[in-house]
Amino acid sequence: MGVVRMAEAGIPGYAYGARELARSPVSLEELDLLRQTVLFTEEDERYLRMAGDVLEGRLDEVLDLWYGFVADHPHLVYYFSDREGRPIEEYLERVRGRFKRWVLDVCRRPYDQQWLDYQHEIALRHAREKKNRTDGVEAPEEIPLRYMISFIYPITATVRRFLEDGGHPEEEVEKMHQAWFKAVVLHVTLWSRPYAREGSF
Amino acid sequence: MGVVRMAEAGIPGYAYGARELARSPVSLEELDLLRQTVLFTEEDERYLRMAGDVLEGRLDEVLDLWYGFVADHPHLVYYFSDREGRPIEEYLERVRGRFKRWVLDVCRRPYDQQWLDYQHEIALRHAREKKNRTDGVEAPEEIPLRYMISFIYPITATVRRFLEDGGHPEEEVEKMHQAWFKAVVLHVTLWSRPYAREGSF
Repeated sequence: MGVVRMAEAGIPGYAYGARELARSPVSLEELDLLRQTVLFTEEDERYLRMAGDVLEGRLDEVLDLWYGFVADHPHLVYYFSDREGRPIEEYLERVRGRFKRWVLDVCRRPYDQQWLDYQHEIALRHAREKKNRTDGVEAPEEIPLRYMISFIYPITATVRRFLEDGGHPEEEVEKMHQAWFKAVVLHVTLWSRPYAREGSF
Repeated sequence: MGVVRMAEAGIPGYAYGARELARSPVSLEELDLLRQTVLFTEEDERYLRMAGDVLEGRLDEVLDLWYGFVADHPHLVYYFSDREGRPIEEYLERVRGRFKRWVLDVCRRPYDQQWLDYQHEIALRHAREKKNRTDGVEAPEEIPLRYMISFIYPITATVRRFLEDGGHPEEEVEKMHQAWFKAVVLHVTLWSRPYAREGSF
């Protein structure tokens, strides 16, 4: 089955830009329509860069918050647990490293073909196509669509307090947060693709 | 095929609580886990009631904004158009009446079995199972999952300005808006169910 060994900056399984990634089934034209639907503009790109600078030094705190939330809810930590229902610590750690890097990628990567291809890879890794494989674990085979979508709320709302701490005026904080919100919705939309029945995405 | 004639307060096709509705395949226990995932509490219920009172007198403006957004984007208005690509005005009008009522239902209905069953009905009416039937039209057979999810952003963000106009202190406006955001994510999560492949919801 082969655990993915590739790493960037020591992040296990992180494969942004790797040549062996499949091409996203979503085209750049379709991406553009999605960007329009979440009202994502070049201004948002600029505010995401700003957000990246604010969040960069706080990534462990952000991840502590998200992981605390998952750990507090048995119905969520279940997807990172073994057959006996015990959380798989190494799996959680490896995912954490990629999740942390994802925060910066949201803020700093151009949303181009390479980015689109990696969103496709991330989508597959949440769905039964590829979940567990990157990390060589035997956890539940898929994170259900319902939790992919409902996670939009906590992943969006919890980031605001960190953005507030960056020393920017409230108006900029709000713009960074709106850009983050749009970006999260855009990512989750793309990640929903493997879950959709034929023709329904 | 039979246009649904039932109406409440003159809203064509509005069938909240109707006996002929199917039971939601999502249980109240599963709903509770989703509520936890979007951090939805009794406090949010109270702030939604407050939001309902603020929005009640502004519903046409809210709908004008949303419909303007759809009308400005050919890739969105497409789903309300006939085979020649012409927007079906009567269809748009009928949907508008229900969408308007939905705003109040989000704010005021208890999220119980009856509510869950109507979310199931709304889900089916966006998907190929029942789209077009309620209104007896021949528009595209489904609103794709991608637009269901990405609509979370505009439907959430655009409501804030109306909540701000209600004369409440900023702290309450923010709480009303967060409750609205959670509620929108919860609704869209439930509406995604018909789109999910077997076992993936």
